[in-house]
Amino acid sequence: MEWKNRLEEMVKKTKQAFYKISSLPTDKKNEFLQILADKLILYKDEIIKNNRIDVEKAKKQEYSKAFIDRLLLTPERVEKMVNSVKNVKDLPDPVGKKIWETVRPNGLKIERIRVPIGVICIIYESRPDVTIETSILCLKSGNCVILKGGKEAINSNKILVSIIKESLEECGIPSEAVNLVDIGGRRAVRYLLKLDNYIDLIIPRGGESLIREVTEKSRIPVIKHYKGICHTYVDKDADLEKAWKVTFNAKVQRPGTCNATETLLVHKDIAKKFLPEMAEMFKKAGVEMRGCDETRKIIKGIKKATESDWKTEYLDMIISIKIVNSLEEAISHINKYGSGHSDAIITENKDAVKKFFQEVDSAALYHNASTRFTDGGEFGLGAEIGISTDKIHARGPMGLEELTIYKYLVYGNGQTRK
Amino acid sequence: MEWKNRLEEMVKKTKQAFYKISSLPTDKKNEFLQILADKLILYKDEIIKNNRIDVEKAKKQEYSKAFIDRLLLTPERVEKMVNSVKNVKDLPDPVGKKIWETVRPNGLKIERIRVPIGVICIIYESRPDVTIETSILCLKSGNCVILKGGKEAINSNKILVSIIKESLEECGIPSEAVNLVDIGGRRAVRYLLKLDNYIDLIIPRGGESLIREVTEKSRIPVIKHYKGICHTYVDKDADLEKAWKVTFNAKVQRPGTCNATETLLVHKDIAKKFLPEMAEMFKKAGVEMRGCDETRKIIKGIKKATESDWKTEYLDMIISIKIVNSLEEAISHINKYGSGHSDAIITENKDAVKKFFQEVDSAALYHNASTRFTDGGEFGLGAEIGISTDKIHARGPMGLEELTIYKYLVYGNGQTRK
Repeated sequence: MEWKNRLEEMVKKTKQAFYKISSLPTDKKNEFLQILADKLILYKDEIIKNNRIDVEKAKKQEYSKAFIDRLLLTPERVEKMVNSVKNVKDLPDPVGKKIWETVRPNGLKIERIRVPIGVICIIYESRPDVTIETSILCLKSGNCVILKGGKEAINSNKILVSIIKESLEECGIPSEAVNLVDIGGRRAVRYLLKLDNYIDLIIPRGGESLIREVTEKSRIPVIKHYKGICHTYVDKDADLEKAWKVTFNAKVQRPGTCNATETLLVHKDIAKKFLPEMAEMFKKAGVEMRGCDETRKIIKGIKKATESDWKTEYLDMIISIKIVNSLEEAISHINKYGSGHSDAIITENKDAVKKFFQEVDSAALYHNASTRFTDGGEFGLGAEIGISTDKIHARGPMGLEELTIYKYLVYGNGQTRK
Repeated sequence: MEWKNRLEEMVKKTKQAFYKISSLPTDKKNEFLQILADKLILYKDEIIKNNRIDVEKAKKQEYSKAFIDRLLLTPERVEKMVNSVKNVKDLPDPVGKKIWETVRPNGLKIERIRVPIGVICIIYESRPDVTIETSILCLKSGNCVILKGGKEAINSNKILVSIIKESLEECGIPSEAVNLVDIGGRRAVRYLLKLDNYIDLIIPRGGESLIREVTEKSRIPVIKHYKGICHTYVDKDADLEKAWKVTFNAKVQRPGTCNATETLLVHKDIAKKFLPEMAEMFKKAGVEMRGCDETRKIIKGIKKATESDWKTEYLDMIISIKIVNSLEEAISHINKYGSGHSDAIITENKDAVKKFFQEVDSAALYHNASTRFTDGGEFGLGAEIGISTDKIHARGPMGLEELTIYKYLVYGNGQTRK
């Protein structure tokens, strides 16, 4: 029981800090970010030393290369963190922005003002860069943060959070604004999900089973950063050059990301012209193709795509390919199997674009461009805490503004309701 | 098991209808609303006849007068429904509105467009007027609806939903856009909460235990319409005339609503001037007062307010009263015991207003006005599906716009990511 009390006490203190943090002036928040940037440089060696402990342990426990690469901090990666901090410092502060106002016939003046959400709990992978990135985005938007990072990064996270706290204290901001959960595993997550008196929002990143558990068990609102089963649909009226180039980029440029295309849909009227060259490009790049029966008549010798392929986020150099009879079939396939993340149509037909954009129910839709562009930076939002696949509050890349909500301020002169 | 299959099949069909509903032009939706208004008049007698069955049954089962009043439909109340339908017809359609756009250095044109959320499941009390109100708001904003009304209103709801479906069919809109769950009780609710493949949002209205169960068990995002523990704080710099008038209105005008004031906080420096007259007004109106020790020194003979009083939504002619030492104490009390709904400050001091507005973490804050104004109509939003007490997506009254989300539309010319 003791760890539960400790955890609850920590979360309670974070909530108390929120009432101070929420109304901090922009200058004060930027002062903190500048100090943090300086301290990250100052403590670079110590950060790397602590990270080394995590990395060595992970190596001993035979984690995958990709896992260890995400865990690893190098001098260059610390520099990158510093740049992130400076970048967020330069972004406009959304808090206090008036987004609507009206004067009612009874003289009441009503304003809608952007305000922070409150205490945000981020549950994430063993990636120390996320510790810094999410903390600075939450704090700049006036929120407090509970960090529940992967246990394999605990030493890296501890030093990073202690540097954040030291920076907060140096500007006279309560250091309880950021807290790290140092109790490992799912039991801590499960307990956090019950603390709805103190936590206002949970953002789970990472694995499917974790996200499912959080969604099922949480009493607190959740914005999921779920998987990306993204599609590129090559329409019968596609420009072939664009289709080859864009589809290739969407799959191959960085296959391990959530906005990489996993399924290629091709209109039957263009399949014979489009697929042979596309298959050559994929083969040369080492992409494994899995096709429907019709596809396999055109691209010989590839594996058959099963029902489960249409539902799979490979995050790898694999693509499933399906030939469809119509634009309507492509749309239905995406709405049925997609994850509402990012989907593209390649066509020169404006009516097809309009229909695709209206009927596909996803966060980001593309005409003649790669699905890989779904990203806060690429969209010009400055930075992102992640990509929401939910359909309330925020959809797609979540930047500073998406970490806020609003309140109504009503100015009266003794008005009463009749 | 059979009812589960039936329920799932119904919800699945609603989702399929959504892909058609979401892109309906405004004219089509308004045509439907006009036909619905006409049909509600046409079928008035039949609606009332069916409602009578529910009312008689509820009377036999000895439900409270207030309960039966909410259940009852009269010719005047059907007229009121018709007016609601016409009112929503006249409101602007939020769907398709461009809320942001940018052109990136690489030439990508990015638009953020308002779109419907999807299939919305409303879980509500035995109030047939809510059946019409929520259906028309959801449909006008391009959403589909699963209605799970209180079982005591089943006959009223059945006829109302059949009229909605008939109206939809007459304009060639899929009638599966609205469906009524006719399986009673919590087991149906519990099953709905698992259908995250088809339902995009759950809005629970009504009792605390229902809302808690929904919040805890749902896999689907929930926007709570929770209780209103609203405060009126009379500051030391209050204008006494305004303070008496506004406080009285906030408690007495309609005590059964969520935006009625439940707790009165009074600054110690003004308590002796303010409270005696206030207590007289409350006594005359039949309001029961419960006070802290300091209050009971000024208002003799009233009950002592206990810790549980500060947490209670009376929804009745009862008020708890506490004398505070400072504005800060008032703010802390509200943030600790309030439900983040509506809270007022009565003062002539602008700095106090600013601090109160910044630090109280509630959906609607009032200066010198009654908390009773938190309402979609009073705010000029046209109509409301309810009042959100959550801190994501929508806060306070939820109108048509709050029933939408956005998608990003990205127009390219062959762009690929580097």
